Amino acid sequence: VKKLLIDRQGKRQLVKEGEDLHTHSGVIKEADLKKVKYSGQVETHTGKKFTIMEPSLIDFIEKMQKRAQIVYPKDSATIIGLTGIGSGSKVVEAGTGVAGLTMMLANAVRPEGKIYTYEIREEHQKEARKHLEESGLLEHVEMKLQNIYDGIDEKEVDVVILDLPEPWDASDHAVKALKFGGYLVCYAPSIEQTKKFVTSLPRQFQETQTMEIILRTWEVSEQRCRPNTRMIGHTAFLTFTRKMGE
Amino acid sequence: VKKLLIDRQGKRQLVKEGEDLHTHSGVIKEADLKKVKYSGQVETHTGKKFTIMEPSLIDFIEKMQKRAQIVYPKDSATIIGLTGIGSGSKVVEAGTGVAGLTMMLANAVRPEGKIYTYEIREEHQKEARKHLEESGLLEHVEMKLQNIYDGIDEKEVDVVILDLPEPWDASDHAVKALKFGGYLVCYAPSIEQTKKFVTSLPRQFQETQTMEIILRTWEVSEQRCRPNTRMIGHTAFLTFTRKMGE
Amino acid sequence: VKKLLIDRQGKRQLVKEGEDLHTHSGVIKEADLKKVKYSGQVETHTGKKFTIMEPSLIDFIEKMQKRAQIVYPKDSATIIGLTGIGSGSKVVEAGTGVAGLTMMLANAVRPEGKIYTYEIREEHQKEARKHLEESGLLEHVEMKLQNIYDGIDEKEVDVVILDLPEPWDASDHAVKALKFGGYLVCYAPSIEQTKKFVTSLPRQFQETQTMEIILRTWEVSEQRCRPNTRMIGHTAFLTFTRKMGE
Amino acid sequence: VKKLLIDRQGKRQLVKEGEDLHTHSGVIKEADLKKVKYSGQVETHTGKKFTIMEPSLIDFIEKMQKRAQIVYPKDSATIIGLTGIGSGSKVVEAGTGVAGLTMMLANAVRPEGKIYTYEIREEHQKEARKHLEESGLLEHVEMKLQNIYDGIDEKEVDVVILDLPEPWDASDHAVKALKFGGYLVCYAPSIEQTKKFVTSLPRQFQETQTMEIILRTWEVSEQRCRPNTRMIGHTAFLTFTRKMGE
Repeated sequence: VKKLLIDRQGKRQLVKEGEDLHTHSGVIKEADLKKVKYSGQVETHTGKKFTIMEPSLIDFIEKMQKRAQIVYPKDSATIIGLTGIGSGSKVVEAGTGVAGLTMMLANAVRPEGKIYTYEIREEHQKEARKHLEESGLLEHVEMKLQNIYDGIDEKEVDVVILDLPEPWDASDHAVKALKFGGYLVCYAPSIEQTKKFVTSLPRQFQETQTMEIILRTWEVSEQRCRPNTRMIGHTAFLTFTRKMGE
Repeated sequence: VKKLLIDRQGKRQLVKEGEDLHTHSGVIKEADLKKVKYSGQVETHTGKKFTIMEPSLIDFIEKMQKRAQIVYPKDSATIIGLTGIGSGSKVVEAGTGVAGLTMMLANAVRPEGKIYTYEIREEHQKEARKHLEESGLLEHVEMKLQNIYDGIDEKEVDVVILDLPEPWDASDHAVKALKFGGYLVCYAPSIEQTKKFVTSLPRQFQETQTMEIILRTWEVSEQRCRPNTRMIGHTAFLTFTRKMGE
Repeated sequence: VKKLLIDRQGKRQLVKEGEDLHTHSGVIKEADLKKVKYSGQVETHTGKKFTIMEPSLIDFIEKMQKRAQIVYPKDSATIIGLTGIGSGSKVVEAGTGVAGLTMMLANAVRPEGKIYTYEIREEHQKEARKHLEESGLLEHVEMKLQNIYDGIDEKEVDVVILDLPEPWDASDHAVKALKFGGYLVCYAPSIEQTKKFVTSLPRQFQETQTMEIILRTWEVSEQRCRPNTRMIGHTAFLTFTRKMGE
Repeated sequence: VKKLLIDRQGKRQLVKEGEDLHTHSGVIKEADLKKVKYSGQVETHTGKKFTIMEPSLIDFIEKMQKRAQIVYPKDSATIIGLTGIGSGSKVVEAGTGVAGLTMMLANAVRPEGKIYTYEIREEHQKEARKHLEESGLLEHVEMKLQNIYDGIDEKEVDVVILDLPEPWDASDHAVKALKFGGYLVCYAPSIEQTKKFVTSLPRQFQETQTMEIILRTWEVSEQRCRPNTRMIGHTAFLTFTRKMGE
């Protein structure tokens, strides 16, 4: 089990429970950690103060976000929420990437569901596995070093999610994999990918809808409230469609 | 168990499994439903065609959305995703309203978690209970006819969500109810509520962030791609903060 | 000269100066109008109160907006502002439509400039002329019943603005018409038109930039401040480019 | 008269007409400039190529934008467009700042109108004057080293524009200065300023509307079309109101 250590400047570090903690500012004794039950304020023997606590899923994801381009939580959350993914859901995803979306999905389907995630680049899969282990979610994921363009092994799937350069090449496989009423989701940065995906959908898919999720952050303080000057203007277009014909 | 019946015009109807289906256009025999395993195309004895399938959570919510003002799925999904709610999470919510957010939350915490939802208006609670029963999620929810301004009974809660006229009046209760590292979320239509909530937060809360989630739908077709002319410009401001001090 | 008459419910009516005013609620005597110098509060002989004043350009445009689809003032204003159009500017526009953009342009180039507006549908031109007359701007406009795809007569033009189904078919004509440093602007509802226009631009055009102008209105009152629930999500993509090569 | 010199990397420099041009890459002879009529491609005696042309208003403003925080052209354009400012308009503005908005306004009211711009900080006024001279617009502007909170000298004004920390302190003065039907505009970064301005407006003002103008730029190329990843999320709230009572 990992714990999250946060210093006064907000710098974060993931650490293993059950040992003395070695930080840049000195050591924190296990006895002191037990005293706060690994949740609360602790200090090193040099007197520097830290907050220690159980990391949330978003703590893991924010840590990844600094190193690689991942599906943003705002988009992952919308995909999960608008398809009704929950415990027991059977979800196919491609490609795995570094597992930004996979982690959110795995958390959503546990304990009874499973994520089947396809990836063709071994080094990505390796990094993704590390992230999933770290966050304790690996058991809910089956990692496949396979090209989804060659087919989907799973049947009666609830949701298929495509974050690929050419999502349209997997649509026919999705028809066969999905249960009746299941969702196919396309995450695509450009409008061209989105259009080609939508206009080449097999006839079994209906109720297709494309959207952008725009997250606008605000400065809210006693002095003043206003949207922040800079924002992320775009991540991707999300398209949702549903298998409603045979 | 309910099934969703959709006619050719997209009109939807929730129906009970295990009986003949009586529609405006005639009867569909149970034998015919069994033949398609309650998923697929069926027709009435008068020849009118329907699609029958298992409703997703969003089908239930869209049905509610036509009758009452509820938290939009885009906002519910973001609240769930950005706080890491999953199976086993212990979540306190107030007020229940007609259970739009409650249903999304219940789906996210099942099977091992629980939603404790506070509401003071009996007629709302009654309607909410009906929606939760219909969608099969009631067992994951404890409905409380109590005023959250008077206190929160639960302890070691993962997330407290406030959709109330005066959310700041519940912040002190949230400090006591939340586990260390837990999230407090405020859903508020106006900037005044948001500001008063943020600026009166007890000192235990840190990493406060306010945002809007703007969902912009697109028309995507062979002929042309463009955002839709009309859109929902605003639902609410979401504020996330975390208990990180004692 | 026209005057604007506004009743207590905000209903607006354009009326001619210099005569008694006949309204649905009775007559207002010219003598009374002179007393307020055609600006201020007047009442009919039946006692109903009206506000009378000089209409602004936007009053004329809002009146048109109720009857026809026109370029929104937010987009017209941006086109004028970002190209530096002012008195003396020589501007070519196609098509005229019902003159929504033309009126804004004419107001911006008067008294020394001129708008040359191309339109192939006679009935549109006729309606456009009526609007320009009504608003007193016709003298700054030369209306041409010509197809701009066949060529542009004018030379040393400051700005060429295309609001056409196939703007790319006028780009070569624009090269010849524009002065060195002049702007070519494309107003297009769909991304396909925008892309075809941008990717087929003659090599003389540089510093090309595409944008959307999103106008979001707010409710601001003592009780609360919040963006309005409904908004216009899209009108058109604006592309600006500049002739900077021979 | 100034000319704009642009090198191959897009770097821009304003230069005086009528002399040899001294650039970092060598001298361009006046004879060569005359040959291209100060518009087109020229090269230094060392062979480095430049584009020379008449600067547009936006060229001046973009140059200012790199050195100081100014009202963005998107907002200036909307203020001008939605109030119908044109040649002959009499406009009062406060504060001048470094004249970003003033330049746009001066260009819009010339040749027959005038901008009366109030500023209390002498160093700002000095810099503003330099910008107005450089762009040839100074003659359309009367610069006043006065505090608008003390009163407005002008009468029968078409538009009063307030870009001030406490705009509500100038509203009563605006009533007296504005003609009947004239506009009062408030440019304010925060919602608090906007609210206090709106809710304290003298009763003569009606048809008040607050808005944000959000400019979203796009990448449009043969390869792909998509909104840019980063954008300016906020500049200011614009409020328009109109004097419609005595």
